[in-house]
Amino acid sequence: MARYEELAKDIRNQIANSTWRSGEKIPSVRASCKSYGYSIATVLQAYQLLESEGWLIAKPQSGYFVAPQIEHLKLAQLASSPVEKTESKTVEINDILFDVLQRNIDPSLLPLSSAFPEPSLFPLQTLARSLSSASRQMSEDSAIVNLPPGSESLRRQIAQRYIKRGVVVNPEHIVITAGALEALNLSLQVLTQPGDIVVIESPAFYGALQAIERLNLRAVEVKTDPVHGVDLNDLADIVKRMDVKACWFMTNFQNPLGFCMSDGNKRKMMKLLAKHQVSLIEDDVYSELYFGDDHPKPAQAFDDSGNVFLCGSFSKCLSPGYRVGWVVSERHSDKIQRTQLMSTLSSSVPTQLGLTHYLQYGGYDNHLRKLRKSLHERKVKMRQAIEQYFPEGTLVTDPSGGYFLWIEMTNGACGQAIYEAALTRGIAIAPGILFGAQEKFSHHIRINCSYDCEDDVLASVQTLGELAAQ
Amino acid sequence: MARYEELAKDIRNQIANSTWRSGEKIPSVRASCKSYGYSIATVLQAYQLLESEGWLIAKPQSGYFVAPQIEHLKLAQLASSPVEKTESKTVEINDILFDVLQRNIDPSLLPLSSAFPEPSLFPLQTLARSLSSASRQMSEDSAIVNLPPGSESLRRQIAQRYIKRGVVVNPEHIVITAGALEALNLSLQVLTQPGDIVVIESPAFYGALQAIERLNLRAVEVKTDPVHGVDLNDLADIVKRMDVKACWFMTNFQNPLGFCMSDGNKRKMMKLLAKHQVSLIEDDVYSELYFGDDHPKPAQAFDDSGNVFLCGSFSKCLSPGYRVGWVVSERHSDKIQRTQLMSTLSSSVPTQLGLTHYLQYGGYDNHLRKLRKSLHERKVKMRQAIEQYFPEGTLVTDPSGGYFLWIEMTNGACGQAIYEAALTRGIAIAPGILFGAQEKFSHHIRINCSYDCEDDVLASVQTLGELAAQ
Repeated sequence: MARYEELAKDIRNQIANSTWRSGEKIPSVRASCKSYGYSIATVLQAYQLLESEGWLIAKPQSGYFVAPQIEHLKLAQLASSPVEKTESKTVEINDILFDVLQRNIDPSLLPLSSAFPEPSLFPLQTLARSLSSASRQMSEDSAIVNLPPGSESLRRQIAQRYIKRGVVVNPEHIVITAGALEALNLSLQVLTQPGDIVVIESPAFYGALQAIERLNLRAVEVKTDPVHGVDLNDLADIVKRMDVKACWFMTNFQNPLGFCMSDGNKRKMMKLLAKHQVSLIEDDVYSELYFGDDHPKPAQAFDDSGNVFLCGSFSKCLSPGYRVGWVVSERHSDKIQRTQLMSTLSSSVPTQLGLTHYLQYGGYDNHLRKLRKSLHERKVKMRQAIEQYFPEGTLVTDPSGGYFLWIEMTNGACGQAIYEAALTRGIAIAPGILFGAQEKFSHHIRINCSYDCEDDVLASVQTLGELAAQ
Repeated sequence: MARYEELAKDIRNQIANSTWRSGEKIPSVRASCKSYGYSIATVLQAYQLLESEGWLIAKPQSGYFVAPQIEHLKLAQLASSPVEKTESKTVEINDILFDVLQRNIDPSLLPLSSAFPEPSLFPLQTLARSLSSASRQMSEDSAIVNLPPGSESLRRQIAQRYIKRGVVVNPEHIVITAGALEALNLSLQVLTQPGDIVVIESPAFYGALQAIERLNLRAVEVKTDPVHGVDLNDLADIVKRMDVKACWFMTNFQNPLGFCMSDGNKRKMMKLLAKHQVSLIEDDVYSELYFGDDHPKPAQAFDDSGNVFLCGSFSKCLSPGYRVGWVVSERHSDKIQRTQLMSTLSSSVPTQLGLTHYLQYGGYDNHLRKLRKSLHERKVKMRQAIEQYFPEGTLVTDPSGGYFLWIEMTNGACGQAIYEAALTRGIAIAPGILFGAQEKFSHHIRINCSYDCEDDVLASVQTLGELAAQ
């Protein structure tokens, strides 16, 4: 192939993969000569070839532009050229999980698989105004002084919010992170060595399972039920029998079961863990979303040992995209900062400052009141629809907070089969197998009930019910 | 201690640790009753005690406020109460590194240890305007559609910038990350298993050493010099003798040596690595900061194997605080997305969109031209000062890009001793021992030369020179 043909081929590929879109100007002949190291004649020849083929349009005195409508035929021809396969795909939980997470982005699907509340429930415009104000006020050194542990004002506001719930937290023990997910992962990294045993709920948040696998730890599942949460007898048995390093639990509105452990049980649990010197990594991202009168406390509030890593976030209440969370650790905030300095360096500074501004002036508590009310109402509607459309005998949780329903098909229907069939009908759900180390939740699915169960959402629940009946 | 005394003690501690500052309103009596579960009488007694001690001021009809000027004596009394020691500190490289990184935040020090250009060189206001515009235009689904691999427009713009340098990059192979540091860490995680061998430069960026240690990998150092960079003969010897999994190199304006490898050497190196099926993790965060006429290409541009993880960032050119970087991987972008989805989920969406807006409308290339000119001028001045004030025989690198000078004290002076003595004079530098697996750079220091060498900066260089002479 001649040089000009090679260059033409490169540019065709760039147009096919959207590096340059219809109407965009591609680099000038002179610029391409410099960057590719070709002569003017070669580059010109390539550009003229592409023009003659209809890929480019030359505009006098301006340069070459991608033609306004590349025929689909041309793009299709390119796409059909053999693509090298990198490796064979073994179907496994990780693949399914990745598939589920990726499909949350697909705008053609109703994302009942989503880990976040329905986006219209977030105060996007107010947040944007706070971000604008905060970023305009950023000083030169703001990028530096907000490195780990993160913005001092934000940490103080988080501490104040805890104290108003009766949970004494020192701002100096808080480290701001890129969402609770980073907080949880950093805590686990700081606490464990490969081979260590970590107790998780059953079913558990898939992020815990993934993190444990990635760090080469051993997961032990504790009995868990949708009403009381972690079974304390079973937990006592496990920590007695095994050398457990940590528990990774969600005590308030657990994902996926939705339970909220009582204060009494939280206190008993912390006593048990302290006695056996087991640390608790507490994922407390849903506790703001209570439907009752009282904000439930984290188990950390009942701890005297200092061995709790209390992780929180704004992702479920304000915006998942801001990626601001935190971890409170009385003993290990130093180690967490070290690990963060060497992995992501810090959470994004403008968004930290934007959230600080929002917490001060944005009316967060008003927003939360409205959000809780909407989530509560929507849960009730969604449960009614499930009871109406799913096969008789189907079990559905009835959580007092959060936005997940956990459904067990007692007729033997397979969660993964429903997942796959639902995709072809434009609906995404989370199959139960994602939530256990063994595949024991194969007759379960998790549904996000923050979507308003009317019209197309209602029709989707009906579709799911039909699929579950098959 | 009575309940009201306990509560009073809690609140004193909260004031001492800045949860509540002078003038701020503390929770109302009613709110505290609810959150602590105490009676009104108990809370009132505690508040009145604190009022009598001068910690609080009661304002009729408004509530209790932290007194405007808490005497330092009171705070000091609290601080001197015995604090539990968590563990003994073994002095090691990690501690020194953490110390160095933490001191970068200290506003009382001249941060010649900083890993970033002097903050006034960044276009903070233009960036803030872009962030404002972008965040106001954010749609409801923006937080979702910008999950990994990240904003499509941002990936297209990054690809276009590569193509203009003559480096063909497909936007579909780009994953947006929380800075290059996350990109590098994700690449290493995706590539390696515990025990694998990774080749690094000598001296190397401390982040590489830390990441290798954290993942339980084995680091092998390759000979490296400030003029040619990685010694290809030594590298050939290593990859022949050992089962090397990956190299983690910085081919353009390496930190700390400052070399820029020639295109010829980059080509030879890629051929060698391809032959032995060794992957390259390329840290290319300084290449925009060239002082000459041409933008150096990454080694990735000379690779046909697809086994390069090319990592870049806006942190060194635009703002460290935004935390937006990326990795280009032809073969493994899928795996990188998976790992990211399970560790930080994604880079902050508003900052991704703000940078996209800036790249389109903010005049990035103009800013870069000015930045390069300033960095070049400042390097020349800083080198002159070093030659003037440091002991005769001191060796200083003369890089053609970036903003680091690597200094070797040939008189036997100890880098760490200079580091510690300099701190007492208000100057932070990076001691050489941070940059090697063994302590072979104990007579070296790294200085950030992006600070304008006049007045106090000049005086600081003189101080450093005096310390080096001792």
